[in-house]
Amino acid sequence: MAIPAFVLNGPNLNRLGKREPAIYGSTTLDEIAARCVAAGKRHDLDVTFRQSNHEGVLVDWIHEAADTGVGGIILNAGAYTHTSVALHDAIRAVGLPVIEVHLSNVHAREAFRHHSYISPAAAGVILGFGAASYELAIDALAGLIRR
Amino acid sequence: MAIPAFVLNGPNLNRLGKREPAIYGSTTLDEIAARCVAAGKRHDLDVTFRQSNHEGVLVDWIHEAADTGVGGIILNAGAYTHTSVALHDAIRAVGLPVIEVHLSNVHAREAFRHHSYISPAAAGVILGFGAASYELAIDALAGLIRR
Amino acid sequence: MAIPAFVLNGPNLNRLGKREPAIYGSTTLDEIAARCVAAGKRHDLDVTFRQSNHEGVLVDWIHEAADTGVGGIILNAGAYTHTSVALHDAIRAVGLPVIEVHLSNVHAREAFRHHSYISPAAAGVILGFGAASYELAIDALAGLIRR
Amino acid sequence: MAIPAFVLNGPNLNRLGKREPAIYGSTTLDEIAARCVAAGKRHDLDVTFRQSNHEGVLVDWIHEAADTGVGGIILNAGAYTHTSVALHDAIRAVGLPVIEVHLSNVHAREAFRHHSYISPAAAGVILGFGAASYELAIDALAGLIRR
Amino acid sequence: MAIPAFVLNGPNLNRLGKREPAIYGSTTLDEIAARCVAAGKRHDLDVTFRQSNHEGVLVDWIHEAADTGVGGIILNAGAYTHTSVALHDAIRAVGLPVIEVHLSNVHAREAFRHHSYISPAAAGVILGFGAASYELAIDALAGLIRR
Amino acid sequence: MAIPAFVLNGPNLNRLGKREPAIYGSTTLDEIAARCVAAGKRHDLDVTFRQSNHEGVLVDWIHEAADTGVGGIILNAGAYTHTSVALHDAIRAVGLPVIEVHLSNVHAREAFRHHSYISPAAAGVILGFGAASYELAIDALAGLIRR
Amino acid sequence: MAIPAFVLNGPNLNRLGKREPAIYGSTTLDEIAARCVAAGKRHDLDVTFRQSNHEGVLVDWIHEAADTGVGGIILNAGAYTHTSVALHDAIRAVGLPVIEVHLSNVHAREAFRHHSYISPAAAGVILGFGAASYELAIDALAGLIRR
Amino acid sequence: MAIPAFVLNGPNLNRLGKREPAIYGSTTLDEIAARCVAAGKRHDLDVTFRQSNHEGVLVDWIHEAADTGVGGIILNAGAYTHTSVALHDAIRAVGLPVIEVHLSNVHAREAFRHHSYISPAAAGVILGFGAASYELAIDALAGLIRR
Amino acid sequence: MAIPAFVLNGPNLNRLGKREPAIYGSTTLDEIAARCVAAGKRHDLDVTFRQSNHEGVLVDWIHEAADTGVGGIILNAGAYTHTSVALHDAIRAVGLPVIEVHLSNVHAREAFRHHSYISPAAAGVILGFGAASYELAIDALAGLIRR
Amino acid sequence: MAIPAFVLNGPNLNRLGKREPAIYGSTTLDEIAARCVAAGKRHDLDVTFRQSNHEGVLVDWIHEAADTGVGGIILNAGAYTHTSVALHDAIRAVGLPVIEVHLSNVHAREAFRHHSYISPAAAGVILGFGAASYELAIDALAGLIRR
Amino acid sequence: MAIPAFVLNGPNLNRLGKREPAIYGSTTLDEIAARCVAAGKRHDLDVTFRQSNHEGVLVDWIHEAADTGVGGIILNAGAYTHTSVALHDAIRAVGLPVIEVHLSNVHAREAFRHHSYISPAAAGVILGFGAASYELAIDALAGLIRR
Amino acid sequence: MAIPAFVLNGPNLNRLGKREPAIYGSTTLDEIAARCVAAGKRHDLDVTFRQSNHEGVLVDWIHEAADTGVGGIILNAGAYTHTSVALHDAIRAVGLPVIEVHLSNVHAREAFRHHSYISPAAAGVILGFGAASYELAIDALAGLIRR
Repeated sequence: MAIPAFVLNGPNLNRLGKREPAIYGSTTLDEIAARCVAAGKRHDLDVTFRQSNHEGVLVDWIHEAADTGVGGIILNAGAYTHTSVALHDAIRAVGLPVIEVHLSNVHAREAFRHHSYISPAAAGVILGFGAASYELAIDALAGLIRR
Repeated sequence: MAIPAFVLNGPNLNRLGKREPAIYGSTTLDEIAARCVAAGKRHDLDVTFRQSNHEGVLVDWIHEAADTGVGGIILNAGAYTHTSVALHDAIRAVGLPVIEVHLSNVHAREAFRHHSYISPAAAGVILGFGAASYELAIDALAGLIRR
Repeated sequence: MAIPAFVLNGPNLNRLGKREPAIYGSTTLDEIAARCVAAGKRHDLDVTFRQSNHEGVLVDWIHEAADTGVGGIILNAGAYTHTSVALHDAIRAVGLPVIEVHLSNVHAREAFRHHSYISPAAAGVILGFGAASYELAIDALAGLIRR
Repeated sequence: MAIPAFVLNGPNLNRLGKREPAIYGSTTLDEIAARCVAAGKRHDLDVTFRQSNHEGVLVDWIHEAADTGVGGIILNAGAYTHTSVALHDAIRAVGLPVIEVHLSNVHAREAFRHHSYISPAAAGVILGFGAASYELAIDALAGLIRR
Repeated sequence: MAIPAFVLNGPNLNRLGKREPAIYGSTTLDEIAARCVAAGKRHDLDVTFRQSNHEGVLVDWIHEAADTGVGGIILNAGAYTHTSVALHDAIRAVGLPVIEVHLSNVHAREAFRHHSYISPAAAGVILGFGAASYELAIDALAGLIRR
Repeated sequence: MAIPAFVLNGPNLNRLGKREPAIYGSTTLDEIAARCVAAGKRHDLDVTFRQSNHEGVLVDWIHEAADTGVGGIILNAGAYTHTSVALHDAIRAVGLPVIEVHLSNVHAREAFRHHSYISPAAAGVILGFGAASYELAIDALAGLIRR
Repeated sequence: MAIPAFVLNGPNLNRLGKREPAIYGSTTLDEIAARCVAAGKRHDLDVTFRQSNHEGVLVDWIHEAADTGVGGIILNAGAYTHTSVALHDAIRAVGLPVIEVHLSNVHAREAFRHHSYISPAAAGVILGFGAASYELAIDALAGLIRR
Repeated sequence: MAIPAFVLNGPNLNRLGKREPAIYGSTTLDEIAARCVAAGKRHDLDVTFRQSNHEGVLVDWIHEAADTGVGGIILNAGAYTHTSVALHDAIRAVGLPVIEVHLSNVHAREAFRHHSYISPAAAGVILGFGAASYELAIDALAGLIRR
Repeated sequence: MAIPAFVLNGPNLNRLGKREPAIYGSTTLDEIAARCVAAGKRHDLDVTFRQSNHEGVLVDWIHEAADTGVGGIILNAGAYTHTSVALHDAIRAVGLPVIEVHLSNVHAREAFRHHSYISPAAAGVILGFGAASYELAIDALAGLIRR
Repeated sequence: MAIPAFVLNGPNLNRLGKREPAIYGSTTLDEIAARCVAAGKRHDLDVTFRQSNHEGVLVDWIHEAADTGVGGIILNAGAYTHTSVALHDAIRAVGLPVIEVHLSNVHAREAFRHHSYISPAAAGVILGFGAASYELAIDALAGLIRR
Repeated sequence: MAIPAFVLNGPNLNRLGKREPAIYGSTTLDEIAARCVAAGKRHDLDVTFRQSNHEGVLVDWIHEAADTGVGGIILNAGAYTHTSVALHDAIRAVGLPVIEVHLSNVHAREAFRHHSYISPAAAGVILGFGAASYELAIDALAGLIRR
Repeated sequence: MAIPAFVLNGPNLNRLGKREPAIYGSTTLDEIAARCVAAGKRHDLDVTFRQSNHEGVLVDWIHEAADTGVGGIILNAGAYTHTSVALHDAIRAVGLPVIEVHLSNVHAREAFRHHSYISPAAAGVILGFGAASYELAIDALAGLIRR
């Protein structure tokens, strides 16, 4: 039976593919969602893909994952990566495996993007591969869940 | 006549008692709410107890307190303690006595929990006593309001 | 034909004129809204004036501006000025001219108000003139849009 | 049978009520002592109340507490709060519950008062309520000892 | 009767329009002077427009303003913005309203341009609008003087 | 035809599986090598797997990759991750896609492991998945090379 | 009638003239005491000259000054200058004019001697003139007291 | 025969007594000059008293002192105290005794006034006594010169 | 003839062997004293072994050593290691060889224990060997004294 | 035809050879000027050699160079090297090749001499060779101009 | 039977006794080797003494120690003390007792020598006694191994 | 008779002319070697030109220079410039004149290239002139050796 998995996206990721393709590529978030669902199927993971600009909504969703039997979470927290202790605590509070992903290589960008509150609470990090970061994370999450 | 008082709780506190009892104890937030209401009754305070994972909702509630004749606020802002200038400003904006509480001794945890944006705007701080932090805060708030 | 423009206000600005007149003056946000609309009319700008205590809502509105043909945005992000990478990214993501405004001279206040995540993404900054900061920003925005 | 408890006060607290009432109130240390003794009686705690301007004497007293069966300590280390690793170590060395108290909200004062060497070694912290900080601490200490 | 106003410019601004138009635009300082004089006339301000590469001369001029009945000063201190405590003190010493202006958005440039010694002593700040920054400042100064 | 790829490992990785399994797991470096070769075959990559405790040797190997037609490099620089500007420069100098990998989540360990000189020069980063980090990196590298 | 004045000396000053004459000169503390008494007489100040290696004793003496009608204090806190918040607080607590003196130019020595907790609480500072620093301080104190 | 001595004053000190008497007192610089000349006469020092807002002029004057047989310099560098390496170097370059003076207690003001480039190059420092700082410095300088 | 030597111990070391054996071992200070005396005899050193919780007493004892012909000092300053400039100065003031010892490896503990004010003034440092640190220091001190 | 070149010297360099030969050598600035003119002749550069203690004058001269067809500038900004953003901007504003020179090795001196505002705007840097630094810079400048 | 022990020396220690005797003494590394071998014999330790300028070779040797039954290591990592995370990790990876030694008191030298990456991974530290540091370390190591 | 001189090059310089000509130019290291040899001949210096990616090899070569009568060293340590205390110590250990060179202006690049461990130990620094930096350094070294 398929195990449910969440792919959660933070602020401004809904605008993917609309601007700044030099940094984020021209793929839209819908296309990434489709690729995540497809990749999930290969691992018998039932992927739910969401996006919100609200920090609190992301916290709510992480709680929801724990309460609804989700096996693990892939989280691209966007800008909240660098400012949200609340997301850090949410990850610790639910005890699910969480994989942090980023489309771009945040370490090659502004200094304020080099620190992540998500990383120390996450199981692992995958960044810099564009939309493929998500697919790799699905593969990795499947491994963590099946282990 | 009973004076209304707010006890407001920030992100992830809804998960109290579900995980990490070593840090937060096994008491649930509902149990704390009940103890706050009971403690309030002893001081003729009418306690409204709420929780939200949303920074903006917490700001809204602080405003609501000022607009509805609340006598004072007990605030466990959770992770927003360390990141929210908005809550700092909200406390200053309403001019009500606010008591900052924490279940755990935040100063014995990670360095990023040692700074609080709430503290300099608060009337006082009580931390480290688990659920009893809230009861002590009710006692303290009653004193501040009656003074 | 009038060009639509957004004037967006962040947390606690809804309480303007109720407290701390020494810092923010006694003008209410409604009065500022009226002055912005009037100033907009002088430049044939159709001003929509909003306030929210929610960081995510402000991000949503900036996106909405880009999706509905708004010509530019005046943003007083309040406390989020100092903490929100999400707003920084939203401004970069939409590619509209954004003018940062503040009622007070933030540089003459606490140290944590001296850094702005909005400034490096904004077209320009106007601060310290009370409600007149907004009117000057309307003038400036008209110039940017018409250029 | 009453359990002995220590309330220890650091440098300059002997001058309470003589100057700077805006910060510390007009209550004298003798009055606080009386209120602590009274509060202790309500919890069947036998309160010994002392003050010294000498860091070493405070260390000696903490040791004495451990050697004479004291159940817990309330410590207002005054200025040594911010500079004394020796007191930090003394608290760790004796293994008694220690509650840090302050009359004023130290986080609303000079930056050098924002860091405490006592806090990470203490069970809990109560600050900002004037003399009531001590009474709340007696309540809290009774709870810790009886637990 | 027209009120005298000073517009003072610091080091290297005399070279405006000669190099780096990507940052400063192609407008020359003479053109800005003309626009300031014209804008001043609209507000019945008699604008004196000067430039110097000498920190001391700028200090002298600020003193001169106070001694000759000038109503207010617009100051683009150029590089001295970031290094001159003397200008900070001069502004405080004369007690005239001073508006800090910059052609470019200094917050989008090198880190050493993000701090201003002028800002905390100024009434307000306008930056990032090219030559229009000056005109907006004339408008703002007229408002401050007439208030 | 198979494209050659390098998997390079830095200091102390030769001792994998011998100590500290809590951090690094019990897998040996030879087992990881075998898994990398196998994963490479699935993508028609001809994997050369090496380890050295010498910073200079790692630099030499990165140069060798560029001189012998290698398509990309997976680099676990171990401790040199945090101290080696030479490896940073080597990556930039050869212009090959380089993927940084780590077995453990370095962001959950000591502070001096939170900064990487490799990251800003790398194409992407994968960390925290134990030996699977390498396999994911092979997948990712194949994607980068084939693109 | 002569006004009493205290000249208080901190740790290691009792060894003056015994070692390190290159830094402190060859004058002994007894000679400085004699010169202070003589200088005091010229201003009708009755100088009490003391030294202690104990921070707490220095705090006690500052309190004693306030309790016994002393007109002002000259304080060479020695090494406690750089570490003692307790002395800072003691000066503020008594409200007497205190002049900080040093024999050597502390700003030309190790970096940890450049910050003084005494200075912001003192009326004035005189340093670098050897024993003459004390005589100048007596002159200055007389002026402050008589004013 | 009288020995020439310079008393040099930096930026904005020409405005003494005109504003901010709470910080600097109501004495004018001319009155201080007169008191310095008078104090000099008591020590057979021929005092030349000057003020400039120009850093370079202050450097020139220090050189002039060395070239014209001046015995020592009293320097209130004003704002240049905190920013001028050039004055630091000038003092070192001429090898004359220089006494740093300030009217106010700079250590009780803004943080950027706590560091002095003059202090490590000066013979001694006197600050906080208003105009009397200068007279004490004349006394001290006479001692240094006659020694 | 035996040369006198001091072994001085700072705050909380009197509680050795009573708590935290994981850090400090179960040896008591009396046992260490006995081992020091025995080790001293092997080198014909007459060891005086003392402990105090008072910084000032430690300073006094270092002075006493210099005044009574002591050949050298072994100093475990405990918590004062990290905060006491007074002890630093005392060591410099007496000119005796001083060896800093610690039972535990302070560099493997909290960050605030990594800096020592004793080290730069000491002849040498020995730490991490439990009670053996003292015996090694006796050996080393004998070497320094006999040299 | 000879190309004009400027050699500009900042504060205190006029005192070269008069003091501190250990740092700067005994050569006077006139001798350096003569060597620069001679070296210039070997490259057909017409060297103008100037010195000023005024930051503003140095800025003026850099502008003058651009306005009078000077081919390049050698700049020893002395103390302004470390404090002058104005000189940094002047170099950028004129677009001429500028070579930073120093007589001494500034990196072997005080920490505040390790940062240069000139370096990032300069074409190259030559330091530590005494007067020969200038001659090497003339050689280098000739190369840059002729290229 | 003798237990093998390694004494490993880092960069530039091969030049001991050739230069800078004020810091390192005139003893050569060969003489130290001889003293270590002799000291080892007293404890029945079979000392192997090596030096390398290569960080990687030092890492290799630490591994070799673990693989060849060495009982413990004395490590003077020289300059790599301050920069090598690789040596830190090597010590942790092999799990042998390692004693850090230095000839000079590194804490009395440049600031960049005050931090050691070796210390937190070492069993203990001995520094400042010249060649005797090594002999004391042999004594200490024997104690650790026999324990 | 020709004096031997070493020109030593650090990591990645062997790839000069192969990539990033915008930063390093298109000249290869072989061409620079040839120009150095030729420049050496003009000064009767016998230039040995080497490159290594190994920090330890560079240290070895500096020692070799001292042992084989080399008159001086030109060192482009590449990335090790910013990280190698070992090279700093090696330069100090051999006592030969060492000139630091860089092809590019490191101060106009990333912040981590602004600090050099080589500079404070070097005789002088030449940077920013491409291959000509080396030729100027040969000229400068000849001057230092002949002096």
